[in-house]
Amino acid sequence: MSATSINPPYLLFVGDARDALAAKTAAGILYWRRDWCLGQVVWPGCGAQLDLPAMTVAEAARAGARTLIVGVANAGGVIPAPWVATLSEALHAGMDVASGLHDRLDAIPALRDAAAATGKRLIDVRHPTRTFAVGTGEPRPGRRLLTVGTDCSVGKMYASLALVEEMQRRGVDAAFCATGQTGIFIAGDGVSVDAVVADFISGATEWLSPANDPDHWDVIEGQGSLFHPSFAGVSLGLLHGAQPDVLVMCHEPTRTHMRGLPTRALPSLTECIAANVEAARLTNPAVRCIGLAVNTRALAVGDAERYLDDTAAALGLPCVDPVRTGVAPLVDCIGL
Amino acid sequence: MSATSINPPYLLFVGDARDALAAKTAAGILYWRRDWCLGQVVWPGCGAQLDLPAMTVAEAARAGARTLIVGVANAGGVIPAPWVATLSEALHAGMDVASGLHDRLDAIPALRDAAAATGKRLIDVRHPTRTFAVGTGEPRPGRRLLTVGTDCSVGKMYASLALVEEMQRRGVDAAFCATGQTGIFIAGDGVSVDAVVADFISGATEWLSPANDPDHWDVIEGQGSLFHPSFAGVSLGLLHGAQPDVLVMCHEPTRTHMRGLPTRALPSLTECIAANVEAARLTNPAVRCIGLAVNTRALAVGDAERYLDDTAAALGLPCVDPVRTGVAPLVDCIGL
Repeated sequence: MSATSINPPYLLFVGDARDALAAKTAAGILYWRRDWCLGQVVWPGCGAQLDLPAMTVAEAARAGARTLIVGVANAGGVIPAPWVATLSEALHAGMDVASGLHDRLDAIPALRDAAAATGKRLIDVRHPTRTFAVGTGEPRPGRRLLTVGTDCSVGKMYASLALVEEMQRRGVDAAFCATGQTGIFIAGDGVSVDAVVADFISGATEWLSPANDPDHWDVIEGQGSLFHPSFAGVSLGLLHGAQPDVLVMCHEPTRTHMRGLPTRALPSLTECIAANVEAARLTNPAVRCIGLAVNTRALAVGDAERYLDDTAAALGLPCVDPVRTGVAPLVDCIGL
Repeated sequence: MSATSINPPYLLFVGDARDALAAKTAAGILYWRRDWCLGQVVWPGCGAQLDLPAMTVAEAARAGARTLIVGVANAGGVIPAPWVATLSEALHAGMDVASGLHDRLDAIPALRDAAAATGKRLIDVRHPTRTFAVGTGEPRPGRRLLTVGTDCSVGKMYASLALVEEMQRRGVDAAFCATGQTGIFIAGDGVSVDAVVADFISGATEWLSPANDPDHWDVIEGQGSLFHPSFAGVSLGLLHGAQPDVLVMCHEPTRTHMRGLPTRALPSLTECIAANVEAARLTNPAVRCIGLAVNTRALAVGDAERYLDDTAAALGLPCVDPVRTGVAPLVDCIGL
């Protein structure tokens, strides 16, 4: 089952990344899949530091790397000319090349030619390579958890991966279903749901998390927010297609406005939980929100603890930071 | 301003349509744009009757037809081989050829070659030919009415067009914004919002109905339903991008289940109105639902009148059938 299957081990291309934020795809892959990462290609003057050996493409190929991952983003999502020679070298060294940028690798003639000459793949994970049926909303066996959020980029992917790890640690048959670029690199497959044709958002999600054993859990990575006016359609289609039994609300407490929209305030946690549960009931009337995953990275330790305690008390729900505290209190409430 | 600009007058291709339902695109165009329709191409054994002269392609070309419109649909949205010769003939006779089917005209080599040879266009209105920015939700001048629905195919396009006609009759500067295939043929342009990439649903809608004069009204054709699990993501993105001041709820009172989903009941009118108003508030806090447009075609006259009266009384909102009663009571409530 795969729309976009990517083979580890990986060579992470960081190149001339300006800062850590620009290399956040590479950092996310390394954080969650250190075993899959052989090394990084990093150029002089690069502003990002990954805790990973620097390698040339040739060295990585000799070490067994099967896929070079473009782990750096830039404004506009374009692929600058200086990168192309390195990506082409990777193809000639026997690797596939994968990217989550908006620009397509296979739109660059030099890369297309190199892929054709070497028989290696250019994998544009942002662009689905298959079509999907429309969603049906029909109940299907298996159990599902979906991470939702007050905004974009509040930690839904990290929360999802932490939940899967904790569930697996407890012996639960749990799997991560990736719906965004970095998540797909971490899972090795998935569907970039914000890039499918609008009619098929829920259908693609149903496909991504099909009928399964009654005690199997799919943990589905959420996208966007029902309260983000740019992307709420994606979030709703994903919510309906995921048919979640359980929601986890994700939040970043220092954000002053919705991402990319300086004049728009975030919703309250209470209204955001209520709206998500209400909408999710359309395809799973038994859905419930079991707690919150908060990215407290921007807070000092004491402030973070206080925020988590206060929020848990105010909402009557467990409230964790997946990185700082782990997600055990959430998994306790899933009803495994 | 156009994503897909189609030039009348039209020659409607009905071909071998099995029944009236199969020719509903042609029937809709004829109902709303009789002046643009020169004739129909209809084959022996066709099960659909349009009140329009039958013509050959050559006759239509001599009469001045500029675009042949594929006005027939079939299961699967494919373009059968027997149609291709006629469509090719139209190109060679100097017409553009336009289709709203899922299969692309320009994927058929014979048509692609004919278009290249003649310099005429193959217009696949279901497939947007341009990209859009993501939506912002920022307020923009001009006023907007959006038709929403309890389900798909309940008359949102007919209601929208009737509202525009009635508003124009009263001297209002009003325009129809088409978001689906038939609507695009009727408007001559528009965007098939269910076919844009999911990230851009609201952005495409903002583009379709841009900033305008403060007393200009855009009447935007809705799609799907917030309660249809296949397509609710499209409906929500459209709702946010449309930023409507006014909603009109559309409904078909004899429908026993959501379209295409035999086990799923329709929402109540009350909950459907409440959910749409609540969601629309994200980008226009002043939004209100002014009434209902009901497609009573399947009811006898007396039953239809009773249904409209009873529903109006129950909801405290005007309730009309755009075809049978006209939409004047709705336009009275818009607050022009």
